[in-house]
Formats: sequence, C-alpha cells, structure tokens
Amino acid sequence: MLVVMSKFANQEDIDAVVAAIEARGYRARPIPGGERVAIGVLHNEGAVDASLFLGLPGVNEVVPITRPYKLVSRETQPSDTVIRVGSVNIGNGHLTLIAGPCAVESEEQALTIAEHVRKSGARIFRGGAFKPRTSPYSFQGLGEKGLKILAKVRERFDMPVVTEVMDVETFDMVEHYADMIQIGTRNMQNFSLLKRAGKARKPVVLKRGLASTIEEWLMAAEYIMEGGNARVILCERGVRTFVNHSRNTLDVSAVPVVQKESHLPILIDPSHAAGRRDQVIPLSRAAVAVGAHGLMVEVHHKPEEAMSDGAQSLYPRQFDQLCRQADAMYETFRNTDACSISTTV
Amino acid sequence: MLVVMSKFANQEDIDAVVAAIEARGYRARPIPGGERVAIGVLHNEGAVDASLFLGLPGVNEVVPITRPYKLVSRETQPSDTVIRVGSVNIGNGHLTLIAGPCAVESEEQALTIAEHVRKSGARIFRGGAFKPRTSPYSFQGLGEKGLKILAKVRERFDMPVVTEVMDVETFDMVEHYADMIQIGTRNMQNFSLLKRAGKARKPVVLKRGLASTIEEWLMAAEYIMEGGNARVILCERGVRTFVNHSRNTLDVSAVPVVQKESHLPILIDPSHAAGRRDQVIPLSRAAVAVGAHGLMVEVHHKPEEAMSDGAQSLYPRQFDQLCRQADAMYETFRNTDACSISTTV
Amino acid sequence: MLVVMSKFANQEDIDAVVAAIEARGYRARPIPGGERVAIGVLHNEGAVDASLFLGLPGVNEVVPITRPYKLVSRETQPSDTVIRVGSVNIGNGHLTLIAGPCAVESEEQALTIAEHVRKSGARIFRGGAFKPRTSPYSFQGLGEKGLKILAKVRERFDMPVVTEVMDVETFDMVEHYADMIQIGTRNMQNFSLLKRAGKARKPVVLKRGLASTIEEWLMAAEYIMEGGNARVILCERGVRTFVNHSRNTLDVSAVPVVQKESHLPILIDPSHAAGRRDQVIPLSRAAVAVGAHGLMVEVHHKPEEAMSDGAQSLYPRQFDQLCRQADAMYETFRNTDACSISTTV
Amino acid sequence: MLVVMSKFANQEDIDAVVAAIEARGYRARPIPGGERVAIGVLHNEGAVDASLFLGLPGVNEVVPITRPYKLVSRETQPSDTVIRVGSVNIGNGHLTLIAGPCAVESEEQALTIAEHVRKSGARIFRGGAFKPRTSPYSFQGLGEKGLKILAKVRERFDMPVVTEVMDVETFDMVEHYADMIQIGTRNMQNFSLLKRAGKARKPVVLKRGLASTIEEWLMAAEYIMEGGNARVILCERGVRTFVNHSRNTLDVSAVPVVQKESHLPILIDPSHAAGRRDQVIPLSRAAVAVGAHGLMVEVHHKPEEAMSDGAQSLYPRQFDQLCRQADAMYETFRNTDACSISTTV
Repeated sequence: MLVVMSKFANQEDIDAVVAAIEARGYRARPIPGGERVAIGVLHNEGAVDASLFLGLPGVNEVVPITRPYKLVSRETQPSDTVIRVGSVNIGNGHLTLIAGPCAVESEEQALTIAEHVRKSGARIFRGGAFKPRTSPYSFQGLGEKGLKILAKVRERFDMPVVTEVMDVETFDMVEHYADMIQIGTRNMQNFSLLKRAGKARKPVVLKRGLASTIEEWLMAAEYIMEGGNARVILCERGVRTFVNHSRNTLDVSAVPVVQKESHLPILIDPSHAAGRRDQVIPLSRAAVAVGAHGLMVEVHHKPEEAMSDGAQSLYPRQFDQLCRQADAMYETFRNTDACSISTTV
Repeated sequence: MLVVMSKFANQEDIDAVVAAIEARGYRARPIPGGERVAIGVLHNEGAVDASLFLGLPGVNEVVPITRPYKLVSRETQPSDTVIRVGSVNIGNGHLTLIAGPCAVESEEQALTIAEHVRKSGARIFRGGAFKPRTSPYSFQGLGEKGLKILAKVRERFDMPVVTEVMDVETFDMVEHYADMIQIGTRNMQNFSLLKRAGKARKPVVLKRGLASTIEEWLMAAEYIMEGGNARVILCERGVRTFVNHSRNTLDVSAVPVVQKESHLPILIDPSHAAGRRDQVIPLSRAAVAVGAHGLMVEVHHKPEEAMSDGAQSLYPRQFDQLCRQADAMYETFRNTDACSISTTV
Repeated sequence: MLVVMSKFANQEDIDAVVAAIEARGYRARPIPGGERVAIGVLHNEGAVDASLFLGLPGVNEVVPITRPYKLVSRETQPSDTVIRVGSVNIGNGHLTLIAGPCAVESEEQALTIAEHVRKSGARIFRGGAFKPRTSPYSFQGLGEKGLKILAKVRERFDMPVVTEVMDVETFDMVEHYADMIQIGTRNMQNFSLLKRAGKARKPVVLKRGLASTIEEWLMAAEYIMEGGNARVILCERGVRTFVNHSRNTLDVSAVPVVQKESHLPILIDPSHAAGRRDQVIPLSRAAVAVGAHGLMVEVHHKPEEAMSDGAQSLYPRQFDQLCRQADAMYETFRNTDACSISTTV
Repeated sequence: MLVVMSKFANQEDIDAVVAAIEARGYRARPIPGGERVAIGVLHNEGAVDASLFLGLPGVNEVVPITRPYKLVSRETQPSDTVIRVGSVNIGNGHLTLIAGPCAVESEEQALTIAEHVRKSGARIFRGGAFKPRTSPYSFQGLGEKGLKILAKVRERFDMPVVTEVMDVETFDMVEHYADMIQIGTRNMQNFSLLKRAGKARKPVVLKRGLASTIEEWLMAAEYIMEGGNARVILCERGVRTFVNHSRNTLDVSAVPVVQKESHLPILIDPSHAAGRRDQVIPLSRAAVAVGAHGLMVEVHHKPEEAMSDGAQSLYPRQFDQLCRQADAMYETFRNTDACSISTTV
C-alpha cells in the first residue's frame, strides 16, 4: 500500500501517517518525490485496509498494491483447478455445456427439455427449484418438489444437475439433491450463505453480482474456499450498465482477467446477459472464443408458456445449433497451434 | 402493457401474439399505427411479465405500462407514512438524524460516540454488530456482544438503536435487541431475508442495492409489506457508476422519485455514498435540501483507529457542524412559504 | 408513441393531452386500460419527440415506439451494405483486418509495422496523424507529415489507409490523403463534423461514443447518410462502465443488435476496449465469433517506445497469431452449415 | 508514478523496467515489499503516461500519483478564481442564477422569458442559437438570427447572455454576440474546439461530458487555459449511469471534489440532469446546498410548445419559487457560522 501525501502536507502530517502505519504493526517507508511525498506500507501480510489512512490530514489518496485474495489467487496456486461434478470435469480444457429451463415447472417439462439438451450435447442439466424473483407476486419455484424432479432427470439421463440455493435454511435440502449448487447474482455478497457454502460437500457455481468488480467476486469465492470448500466455479452473466439493448452487458474481458488472477474455472451464462433470445447464440460464440470453460444456457421447449425468463430461453433446435457451432469452434482451437482456449496469451 | 410489432410482422404473427395474450387471461387490443401495429394488453390486474411476449415472432419490443408494485405505491396510499421508532417519528416532516460508528467495537467506544452525537442532535443511534465485509479476513463484528452494547446505549441515552441483520439465523436475536432493523445494500434482493423481515415486529430500514433501479428497490419493500410488516423506511446510499472520485455516486433524484411513487419515508446515507470524510458534509446538506426525511451518518471519535470505514467517519465536531447546518436549513424551509422539504413540487 | 396517464388523471388532463397531440398534426387515440388511460399517437412519420408531452399534467410517462432513424435502418434497406475501400470490401461476409500503430511516429516506424501486418493478413492500414489526447501536453500527432507517410504506406504495400479526422478545418486534407476517414469516440456527436462527413467522397468509420446508446450511434450515422454519404461503417470500441479491470467494457451484444437494426457493416476495435495488451487477443476472438465484419487492431513493433497507447499495442508476432486464429475461426464458420458469422440467428 | 511488479517478476524484469524508466529521463527507485517489488518513478515534471510501462514483462499495474493537470489545479493557484461576465461575478461566494429557454425560438419568446427570469432573480440569460441535436431531423436552432435575439435580450434587460458554440467555423460569430460561451457535453473532448476556446476573449462554460471523469474534465479545461484563456467555468449536468428514472444522474459530489482539486468556479445544470420538470427544483436545492457557485436552469413560458427540451423546462412561476428557495438557503448559509457554501469543510 502506498499513502500519497498532498503537495501541501507538512512534516507533522507525514510523521502522523508514519505513526499511524506503525501503530498497526506495519513498517512505513517515506519516498520523497519531485513535488510530494509518498509513504510505502511494508511488511504487511495480505492486504491493508485503505480506509485506515485515507482520512488523515495531508493524505491525498491511498493506493492498494497487494491483492486482497489468497486462496483463490493464481499466485497461491499456479495451475488450473479442475472440478469434477458427477462424471463431468469442468476446467480441464474441454468446453462444458450446461443447459435447461430457468425454472423446473413440472416433471414432464423437465424431462422433455433434458432429453433435448442431452442429445444436443449438454453434459449438466440446470433448472431452478427456488427462484429469486423481483416481485413477491411472481412464481417462486416448486421447492422440494422441483428438486425431486431434478433428481429424476439425473437418474433418467445420467446428467449431473445444478440448481440455485437461496438461503441457509434450505441449503441442506438443496445439497442433498443437487450435484452442484448455484449461488445467484443477488446473493454474491450474502456472506452468511457464502460461509455455509464453504461447508458444503458439493461444488458451488458463484455467479458474479450485477455491479461487482472482479476483486469483490474473487473475495466472495475466497469466503467459500476459506470455509473449506475448494470446489468453486465462477460464472460471468453480464453486469449492469447504461446499455439498454440487452438486459445486462456481458463482460467478456472478465474471462482472461479471472484466468490471470485465479486458478478457478469460469463459465459464461449468455442467457441472463442477453435477456433476449436473439442475442444468446452470438454471445455464446463469443463466450467460447474468449476462452470460457463452459456455458450455462436457458432452454425451453415452449418458451412462450414458460413461467419465468421465457424471452431469453432458446428453443431446443437453437440450442442444438449452438452446440454444433461450439463444437466446431472447439475443434478449430484444438487444431490450431497458434491458439488454445484456456491459455489466453 | 404494449406489444410493439416489427414493420415486417404479418397478420399471422399478430394473431399469434393476440392468442398468446388471451391464453394468459388478458384482453388484447391491436392498435394500427402508421408503419406498424402495437397490441395493448388490457384487463390485467397488476403488472404483466414482459418476457412472456418478447420472444414471439414479429415482436419488436414490449413496453410495461402499469407499475408492478402495489402496497408500497402512492396510488394505493396517497398520504405519507410516518413510522415510529421508540419515541422518534420518521417521515413526519422533521429531519431525523441517525448517527454512530460503522461497527460497535467496545462499550467504551459506543458510549463515547453516543454521548457526542446525542448532544449534537442525533435522535437514533446506529452501529453494526454483524458486519458484511468484502473480505473474510476483515473484522466481522462483535455479534451478540455488540447488540448488548447497543442496548446499553439505548438505556443510557434514551435513544432508539438501529443495527444491521445479515441472515435469518440471527434475525430473532437482532430483533430482540434493536429498535429498528437494517437490511443492507448487499442483501436488498436477499428474498429469504426480506420475507423474514415481513414477519418482524420492528421497523425495517431497507438500503438501496448498489445497482438497483427504484422499481427493484420498491419491489423489495413490497416483499416486506406483503409479508405483513408495513413499517419500511427506504435509504439511498449511492449507486455504482463509472465515477471514481467518490466510493459511490449519491443519486439525489431518488428522493423526489420515491416520494412521487411511494408513501414510504426515505433517508440518505451520505457516508457510504462518499466513502471519504471530506465529502460527507456537502452531501449531507444536499440530502437535506433535496427533501430526504432523515440522514444516517457514520461518526467516530478516533476514526484513524476504527475497525472499519474509518475514512468516511466524521469526527464528533464535524457531526456537530453538520447538525447546525441541517437545523438552519430546516428552519429556512419551514419559514419559507415558497418551499417545503417534504412536498417536492 | 404512447402517452401513459397517471391513475389520478382526470378527463380534463386527458383532453389537454389529446389537444396537444393534435396541435402537432398527429392523431390521438385514447386506449382505456384497467387502471389508467394511455393515448396512442398515430399517423406520425418518423419519431415524435417524447419531451413534447412528458411534462403535461397527469402524464406519467411517454413511450417511444417508432425508431427515430430512417436511412440507416434495416427497415429501409433490408440487405447488407458492402463498402469498398480501395480494393477491399467491408461487410460482404469476409473478415476485414485493419491494423497499424496508434499514431504515425515516423516513416520508418510506419513502414516497418505495415510490412509486418500486411504479411500477417491485414488488408487496411491504420495510423493516426491527428491525435485526440486527453492532455494538451501529450503528443498530438505529426499532422500532414503523418498523412504523407500514410500515403507512402499505401503506395509501398498496396494497402488502403484509414486515419482519424478531428475537425472541419483539416477535413479536406485528411480526405485528400486517406482512403477511409475515421471519426473518433469523442467526436461521435460532433454534429458539425458529422455534417461535413456527409459531404465526403470517402467512406467513414464512425466509432461509438463512450456512453452512447445504439440509438444515438445510429442517429450519428444518420447525420452522415442524410448529408449524402452512404458509405458509413460502425465501430464498437468499448463503453464506459464501473468495471475497472479493462479500460472500457467491450459490448459484444452491440454486433447482433446493430445487424438487426441496420444494414451498415460493423467492426470491433479490441485495443481500445481492453487498454491492455494481454486482453486484446481474447477480445479479438470474441469479436470474430460474435459476427463483426472486421477488426481494427493496434500493433507496434516497439510498443514500449510508442508515443501513445503502447500498453495496448500488440507485438507483430502477436498480431500474426491473432490472424491465424481469426482465419481458422472464419474457415470453421464457413464450413459449418449450422452457423454463419454475418447471419446472426 | 509507481510500477507494481508481479510476485513472479524476476530480477531481469525489474532491470528492464528500471531501464525503460531511465530511458525516458526519469529516475527509478525500486521499493522492495513483502511479496513483490514496486518501482517509484521520480523527478518527473507533471504526469507520466502510465501506458509506457503497463505492457512490460512482469508488470502488474501502474499507479499514477501526480495529477496530470497544472494550470487548473488548486496546487498551482490556491485561491478561488472569480470570473466577471458583463457586470456579474461568478465564483465570489454569491449564487449566480442563469436561466432561459433551451433554444431561442423567436424574439417574442426570448424577451418574454427573459422578463420573467430577470424579475425572479436570474442574472445571466441562457438560450441556444446553435443546437446539438441527436437527430438530423430535429430543430437545429436559429443560428445568427438567434444570436441577434440574444443581443436584444442583453440590451433590453441588461443581462449578459450565454449561448453554446458547436464548431470552430461559427466561433467568431458566437464570440461576437455572446458574453459567455458554452461548450456542450458532447464537445467536452472536441479538442480543436477547446483550442479555439483558448484563444477566445470571452469566458467559457465547459460542461462535463456524459461519461467523463473529473480528471478528464479538468484536462479539457487545461486545454483552454493552456491556450491563453484563464476564464473557464465548469458545469456539472449529470452523468450517464444505469439509473433510468432521470435522464442523467446528477453527481453532486463533483462540486466538493472540483473545489478541492481546482480553483475554477463550478455551476450545476439541474435541467439536463433531471430531464423532467418535477425533479428540477429538488435538484436545484441540492445544488445550492452542496456548494455550487451557480445554477443554469431551463425556463419556458409555454413548455408544451417548446421546440426542444420542453419536458424539463420550468414554468416561470416555478423558477420564481426556485429563486426564493435558493435565496433563503443562501441567507441561511451566510448567517450560520457553522457553515459556508464555498468552503466545503
């Protein structure tokens, strides 16, 4: 950390900052510059809280240098983490396709969609049993009944299933039925839920918050790892910006940045980024090309009758088209010496 | 709701949309325009889910017309809601000052600060016992010990206390000690927590999410009211934008918009918006001037030693200055026929 | 356009809105709903200014329906526009690679880089002679001397050249030397410059503004087309958001949306979106995959000595790698029935 | 500037960075930390371009320390600049009210509005003769005819007038008629226009760009000052964010930050921030309270017939109300020892 003093700071101000730094157990090293003094904070383990020094007299700004994350950091573990979900691996260079409806609506609906997406190439089935909805008057999911339907999908099609958990109360139940547990965008900084996920015996997909920096996102993953669960998969799903032609703005650069900073695998969810069916396939192709380890896509056989998110769900034939495009791209990358998906320059 | 068709939509597309609308039990009314047809959705109670029709062939866009909120809406209750917290009223035209440290750190710290802010004019004491922290390695709050200290503050200074609740597990405990319960920014769409808050017997301060629209925020309040708790107070605390000179961007226009759309009181928290002490007083003045019903301000007698958010905490003498400015402004508004704080044109 | 009235609007308010609509020469059609009246504005050619009715008593909101753009709209011209620049076509399904340094610094620098990028597969050379710089103290470009160097590049390597024009004063000069003229991000709504570009006899690359909606961007293109120049190429280069791990946030969904709304070709500039070399290749791959008609990439043989934007310039060998990846992807798409780059579902 | 090395950087990387720094004529000082090395860049005058070092091997990030602006900086000139426009001073502690229509539409319109706003307390008249419009089909202003009407307003009511200049071609004409020249939001980084403004003999109001940081805004002002014109007034008018309940988001914290960083006066334009009449008065009050040196407000006597921006224009009686509120607030601040508008803590 570097504390940058104002041009008008006097020796007394500088001494006070040095004292405040040393009172915290760190070592202070003033660096005289041309016009102002900066004070380095040394010998800290991990990150120092910038706000400790920001308000002191004569301080202009405080610049963090060390990253605050440890367990999730590639500096801690240089090699990629590969995570096994049932018989499927995520993060080993293959592209993992996860597909299914936004919400589990009935056994017939889930099995019909599962059959379609399995045939097209999906390896993991997704479907919500507990739905976080903006309105208390909207369909909130089938709850345990939905989880049981997911279990049938796994049995029938030999596909692991992933579903969202919304709170600590229902965590045991979700953990019992699911092969992989999703923590949604709105709960990315629900720290109580993250702590519980740290005790889970199942892998966790952690979606990025609507307005989260990558640092905040990795720190949320750090909560889970720090709790004892090393099987965390990140999922970019668009962030909120001024842009109004898509529901959210897919931040494709998150993929190379996460892959540089962390050893954890990263998926892209093009459906929630787009919010409209006609953008999902182009965004999916971009996701594959940028180097994501997998896609999580919403598919519905009758989207116009879906109980949630119908507008962004692909028809099964569209998902099939997406799978063929993704396969072709993956083959291309595998056969091109010049490039590889997971080694992003 | 209005479904706007593409210029290229044919009669078959239009018929399919009409059928889809009527299959949901609404009435469809096509409106021929110069270049394209729009189809009105009538006889719906409350809002219709736009996504139901967005993906159908020939549909260009879907425009919501009715607001989705009911109980929180000023159309439902035209007069302002006044909420009583202990002996203090919020929302009745007086400016309610809430102040205290970010986190309760010790009995001595809390009592010292409480004495200062009480004397300056704060009517309610704030202080965190459970702290949502970005890093799992940061101070997480004193927990129940902190709540007990808050109870002492109440007793000693006859001030109601407000503190944050982070999960359903500790809700009973927080509800037992606090006079008013805060749901923080990161939990604004933690729907399980909102449902629990709907059963609470204490008023709830609901902070706006980092990237929430006012509609989403009011829908979160709707969850609490729909659960049975009508005592909800909104709190604007800055939103996340590209701006980097303050921690967040205080959205002052949220105040007149909330006051137009809803009957619930609205506070402003200038401390989290600013993230830096030197912006807190100017933002506080703006908050009073724009017509907020109260302020929630972080104050610490030794901010350079604070365990969290020290950089944005005012010194007691600064808070005193803020109170004198706020009082003067309030008197001004009361004595000027031309204006009033709570009736914003 | 639809004028949505408040639930509390009375008949007098409605009549006043109807009168205001008809005073503008449009036809008003009130549409009674369950709880409120909406008034359709019919028989307008093109878009109506929403602000005309937004402030009238009883009006809740005004919803535009017709798009405001005409000449750029795919509703006006359904087939893709292909634009010829020297011997190169943009927009005909091939991927056009444009590369070169941020700024032309010297003849030797430009020729060296041109030789590299030509060999790797670039078809058009880019390089700035007039540089828009945030600081008046930064290198502002070589001016006409730079333009003459660009002319030499064209001659030597048989590559058309594109360079930025910053004002009407130097437009003639830039138009004389360049094969294609760039209007930069900061000038996207410099309407005087757009009008001059409408008179130009060369194709124009119009970069998206830092915080522009697609509607605003297409309206800027409309200025150029309305002035008489139909050869407009759009270029997405990232927008400004809260995200801080890249200089800007590349909005890949702009490609399918522009291709749906307009017949004009669209490029992606990954260099300015990233602002850092290590993100440029992944973003380039995403750009190809999402269906952009071309890439505009900064390349420098000695980026550490570049006079501007060195940090985001690729080394020649990296650009070569990018070309091989892009070629492989293009071949993949051409050979896969299931997909095509320019027809995005 | 501080160059922060990766944990994995080796001595060779560090030496290369040191060499690159010294090749630019600066002095490099490596600072060994706990886990990584940072390298200070010393003895530079003014700011160093971060991108010079960002792409070098082993470099993690580059942290600017010195501010890039000089002439506009409060470090260069500690005391407030007061700017005289005709007989009116801006920046001397009084609140300067500037009002008038968005566009000059006719002599009658301008004189009618001027009479109203003059009587209410406006000291400077605003009105556009050249209008930057998103659509080429919208009213573009009366041009010179509009400027002549402004000259009549000045004569008749003894009010200086401010109007926007859109390009270098019409600059002489605008400078001839106007007392103060406005550079609009969309032209904030039209550097050719800024350079011309640097030669102007009239004060310049520089509006903040839609997505500009304060640093970029101050650098735009630096262009004007560097050109020789020291009379620059800044104007905050809202920035673009995800927020959709106002046209833009008024960034009130820009006022204390600009006042800390620069000696130049700063106005607020609440009309363009709001985009809706019913938010203009609350935002104006916030602007006064936060310490702006003046307001620039749109007023129209028949806004429903205005040729642009009718929805955000106040009625004359509303502007009168605004003036009485602003006066009362100003008196309050003058009489309260505890506070002052221009000295923000």
